Amino acid sequence: MNFEKVAIVGASGYSGEELVRLLGRHPQAQIVALTSRQHAGQLVETVFPKFAGQSYAKLAFIGSEISGVIQSGARVVFLALPHGVAAEFAKPLVEAGLKVIDLSADFRIKNPAIYEEFYGAPPHAPELSQQSVYGLPEIYRQEIQSAQLIASPGCYPTSIILPLHPLLKNYLIRPEGIVINSLSGVSGAGRNAQTELLYVECNESVRAYSSPKHRHLAEIEQELTLAFGAPVVINFTPHLIPVSRGIFTTIHATPAPGVDPETIFSCLTDTYEKEPFVRLLGPKGMPDTKNVTQTNFLDLAWRFDPRTGKIILFSAEDNLLKGASGQAVQSLNILCGWPETTGLL
Amino acid sequence: MNFEKVAIVGASGYSGEELVRLLGRHPQAQIVALTSRQHAGQLVETVFPKFAGQSYAKLAFIGSEISGVIQSGARVVFLALPHGVAAEFAKPLVEAGLKVIDLSADFRIKNPAIYEEFYGAPPHAPELSQQSVYGLPEIYRQEIQSAQLIASPGCYPTSIILPLHPLLKNYLIRPEGIVINSLSGVSGAGRNAQTELLYVECNESVRAYSSPKHRHLAEIEQELTLAFGAPVVINFTPHLIPVSRGIFTTIHATPAPGVDPETIFSCLTDTYEKEPFVRLLGPKGMPDTKNVTQTNFLDLAWRFDPRTGKIILFSAEDNLLKGASGQAVQSLNILCGWPETTGLL
Amino acid sequence: MNFEKVAIVGASGYSGEELVRLLGRHPQAQIVALTSRQHAGQLVETVFPKFAGQSYAKLAFIGSEISGVIQSGARVVFLALPHGVAAEFAKPLVEAGLKVIDLSADFRIKNPAIYEEFYGAPPHAPELSQQSVYGLPEIYRQEIQSAQLIASPGCYPTSIILPLHPLLKNYLIRPEGIVINSLSGVSGAGRNAQTELLYVECNESVRAYSSPKHRHLAEIEQELTLAFGAPVVINFTPHLIPVSRGIFTTIHATPAPGVDPETIFSCLTDTYEKEPFVRLLGPKGMPDTKNVTQTNFLDLAWRFDPRTGKIILFSAEDNLLKGASGQAVQSLNILCGWPETTGLL
Amino acid sequence: MNFEKVAIVGASGYSGEELVRLLGRHPQAQIVALTSRQHAGQLVETVFPKFAGQSYAKLAFIGSEISGVIQSGARVVFLALPHGVAAEFAKPLVEAGLKVIDLSADFRIKNPAIYEEFYGAPPHAPELSQQSVYGLPEIYRQEIQSAQLIASPGCYPTSIILPLHPLLKNYLIRPEGIVINSLSGVSGAGRNAQTELLYVECNESVRAYSSPKHRHLAEIEQELTLAFGAPVVINFTPHLIPVSRGIFTTIHATPAPGVDPETIFSCLTDTYEKEPFVRLLGPKGMPDTKNVTQTNFLDLAWRFDPRTGKIILFSAEDNLLKGASGQAVQSLNILCGWPETTGLL
Repeated sequence: MNFEKVAIVGASGYSGEELVRLLGRHPQAQIVALTSRQHAGQLVETVFPKFAGQSYAKLAFIGSEISGVIQSGARVVFLALPHGVAAEFAKPLVEAGLKVIDLSADFRIKNPAIYEEFYGAPPHAPELSQQSVYGLPEIYRQEIQSAQLIASPGCYPTSIILPLHPLLKNYLIRPEGIVINSLSGVSGAGRNAQTELLYVECNESVRAYSSPKHRHLAEIEQELTLAFGAPVVINFTPHLIPVSRGIFTTIHATPAPGVDPETIFSCLTDTYEKEPFVRLLGPKGMPDTKNVTQTNFLDLAWRFDPRTGKIILFSAEDNLLKGASGQAVQSLNILCGWPETTGLL
Repeated sequence: MNFEKVAIVGASGYSGEELVRLLGRHPQAQIVALTSRQHAGQLVETVFPKFAGQSYAKLAFIGSEISGVIQSGARVVFLALPHGVAAEFAKPLVEAGLKVIDLSADFRIKNPAIYEEFYGAPPHAPELSQQSVYGLPEIYRQEIQSAQLIASPGCYPTSIILPLHPLLKNYLIRPEGIVINSLSGVSGAGRNAQTELLYVECNESVRAYSSPKHRHLAEIEQELTLAFGAPVVINFTPHLIPVSRGIFTTIHATPAPGVDPETIFSCLTDTYEKEPFVRLLGPKGMPDTKNVTQTNFLDLAWRFDPRTGKIILFSAEDNLLKGASGQAVQSLNILCGWPETTGLL
Repeated sequence: MNFEKVAIVGASGYSGEELVRLLGRHPQAQIVALTSRQHAGQLVETVFPKFAGQSYAKLAFIGSEISGVIQSGARVVFLALPHGVAAEFAKPLVEAGLKVIDLSADFRIKNPAIYEEFYGAPPHAPELSQQSVYGLPEIYRQEIQSAQLIASPGCYPTSIILPLHPLLKNYLIRPEGIVINSLSGVSGAGRNAQTELLYVECNESVRAYSSPKHRHLAEIEQELTLAFGAPVVINFTPHLIPVSRGIFTTIHATPAPGVDPETIFSCLTDTYEKEPFVRLLGPKGMPDTKNVTQTNFLDLAWRFDPRTGKIILFSAEDNLLKGASGQAVQSLNILCGWPETTGLL
Repeated sequence: MNFEKVAIVGASGYSGEELVRLLGRHPQAQIVALTSRQHAGQLVETVFPKFAGQSYAKLAFIGSEISGVIQSGARVVFLALPHGVAAEFAKPLVEAGLKVIDLSADFRIKNPAIYEEFYGAPPHAPELSQQSVYGLPEIYRQEIQSAQLIASPGCYPTSIILPLHPLLKNYLIRPEGIVINSLSGVSGAGRNAQTELLYVECNESVRAYSSPKHRHLAEIEQELTLAFGAPVVINFTPHLIPVSRGIFTTIHATPAPGVDPETIFSCLTDTYEKEPFVRLLGPKGMPDTKNVTQTNFLDLAWRFDPRTGKIILFSAEDNLLKGASGQAVQSLNILCGWPETTGLL
């Protein structure tokens, strides 16, 4: 059994917190550095009281200097930083020969023009985006094995690409007219002290936002376009709902001409039945976020509506796990040649 | 200022509770009978402790016999009963010459075959369904004025028909490919002691249900088909989210050939700008259920997605008010010739 | 029916929002000025979208200059400002002969040393504190009638003083050993963008805070000491729980020597049975915040524990209504000679 | 590393569900039987969809016959059954020589008269109650090692006895006048389809209940009386708050004559600083249920109020883990001679 030294940069947000927990109890990863500008010098148990008593509770945060990360001896570095900031860290780490798993959007988008269209500024390190691997294990497992820079997917994209990718890749659904509605818990917005994220503002409240052009469309369409081999443009509406964690996604799509719904559903079964983190609930089951929160699973169910001819796909995941930190650790496992579920069940 | 005696039959569920509150403080309605099989003999303040101290707190429930309702002298009777049960009560009340406002689905569907398709049994009083008026004031205001039997709309249908009706009536959107996702609070399921409605089962949980054929499709499609003049078939997916009250609906539709999005939005503005209970938030605003709960308003906003050519409509309402009891009182006001907002602001 | 012009200074927090709602629909008060540093120039419906469609929705906020308030012609001014800031506004308004109802703590404490002990700085206008009336109508109704400056009580104190005041005043319970535990919704902390008030931090979370010396003890002990005629020192522990609104208070006290529990409970009944906003649930009922939120009622129940000899008192209120803005309007009604429930039922 | 075969009887409630999860992933326990009257024949993943994909997901429930449990070869049997029912199962299992860990109240109370006083009926197997060990590892660790029947403590009692036991045992606080207020999540009431446990009834609601004589007082007072060596009678008020999981307990007590608060706090530190599942937050920290839910920890903090002379103790735990199933597994670990934290961190 081999071990690997890992570092987490920017470990004080919700994704960082989950990385600390997952890597802290991971049987083969060893955390050698945790950085936080805000909490440098503090112990994990001080910053996250819920981790007191765990084996990793007495680890101390260091400042966010790259030199400290490199000197820690870490071989794999997780970046849990805001968009834009991650690129600054990734570059010297990659140059120093370290493996980097980035949870931000900085390296997800291959086309710089599309990045700029959706993120409002040119990418900071477009050459790195070219060499990065999109860290969705179910699709890029092989590439992840030898990647140096992994761009771990966004929370919404994971819940959307997994159901649609095999169907578009196999030309089973039409590429236009796909309508996606996602419902996300509030942790998706990060641990940011904003009025609109206050308890009283979110409780007993539901609202759509960022319609019609949420930033995650960039990576969703990139990956679905790659799958289909021709441009796929998506209707995507995210909603904020009063749960702490969890994303529920409902997708309406149209079978390609002459394609039977059963063929579509068989494709999903064939694609995912051996995947350790995709659970197929079939035509009668229904995902519920409470069944996936605190896990790295994505649950997937489907229906066919004979009245309208549409297929409807339902997925649920924990936005902080399969939608962020859990998936990043899944990539780590692949990268290190460990069983993919190590530390994740 | 004229007054009217009213009765509420089946007043112990969530809709009934709201009717008691709204009619209890209504300046022109006078509650002369409240019935409940379960609570006969008890006071309003015993059944609903939150109403203690209100002027109507000492009203006593009577049993659910029709004779008692008729003897009460009520001129208008609200039925807040389960589907199927309402019809039994409506028939003798209508025959006795009383006005009836029914909150169940029993009289909403004109076509008995469609009722049976969606409700699993033939309608109990199809002849009454023929003479009933669908109680959506923004569309049937004139018919409500002289109706004897009003079939008050369901909660989802209200949030869906109001945005779509004028657009289909004016042929501004295509009738096919409409995709509707609605998110409802748990009170929509009624005060029923079911495991799946327990706090622990609904909290931190999101799930779709009744896909692809929820019962409310029957009335949604009936009304949209009437508007368009040809069959309209809808994709509709309801979701249960952890709020007590509120429905949020997101609709994706396609402009009819040659129709500019601005024309569509102008139509909504023209149709509703003078409506007292429809608030237009336009292309920049966004409904939030917390702004409509405890009110009879439906909030409506819209977007155009130039990338996909779709228009997106967003509505929010309180499922128990504009989606049920508030709308029923709005119909009462019309029926009695009172200002439509009486007792509702 | 006489009318009165009123102003609200600092109307953009949660208490201010409730004042706008209550006074906006009040049949005899007329809002002539609303101030907000942050929202000057904006309409009520812009700042509070939920008020769109109401008669007061088009009122515009003005800046927070005192001159504007005075020029508005307001005769009564509500101050919904942070502690310390309120005093600056109150002074010139009082000097200009206006009536002031202050919702902050600035004028609640008569003894400057106690104010300083609990608030960490000397009072800004101690001479005004001397002439102010503590705005708890059930106790100071007569004084409120002719007050020029009303110091409206805090949310916790209202839920505590009302149950205990008559018992101490009549020497029915012992003044020492009183233990009070209160549970408050998150709106009690105000609309402040702080990390610890975020949805994710408060949801599925319960915690005590400010133990053993919460600021509200200053006014609680002041009023109970006045009632008893000798020092009363209290054990008080507030807790933050995941509801938006509502305070629940549980009090343990010991009957005075020779006093029968029934005498204690009779005293509560005698004191409050004619109060319009105190609902007595007796020895078998139990308050529930969901029955008092959105109302100006305080619900009160009691038990005697023969095993320990303690009496236990339970109260519930809406922290923003009976605990803040509703109570302030109750004082307005008294001040203006209107029926005390005007606009509050 | 030795292994042990275990069975869970009545595994379909919330406690049973947690037992399945904890024992299913326990490295040394092997589940050989799961019983449920309602779900006999179904798989774990059918009854608890969130466990799909786990190693124990394909275990099948058997019926609740004792013979099946005995034939399974289990050496330790967990009973997660309602009060009264557990005794029926325990008796034959104990007679068959199996070890039994019972999560009900059936064997917690040594004095049959007290059981009857609090539970309304005589105990079903008083002779077994005599030989049972109260399964609070921090107090009865040694007795648990050789117990045949463990009466695992209730959720409230765990959060109360742990803070108070050492203080009473060492005569550091006065035995009378102790006031305890506890706040519990809704899962404490079990997965029972009752109207008062519906989402809509519990959300935005807080209420006390079972005052002044909750059943858990029987075991609380029994254990505290044993600690003190003379009768201890407690004031205890439980409250239901809208969280799924978690108990927060606030205790007010008085130092014994001549005892310094620091002595009291040192006693807590000395008693618990080496305990693996008690985390001491001291005089500045404060428990928060969100830090203990999903863990087997009890967090403990304290204050001294020089104004009243009281000490205040605060504890938080997950009612389903340290308050039920986690603690039962902690006892299993002791019983089997495994490290006490096995499978619990």
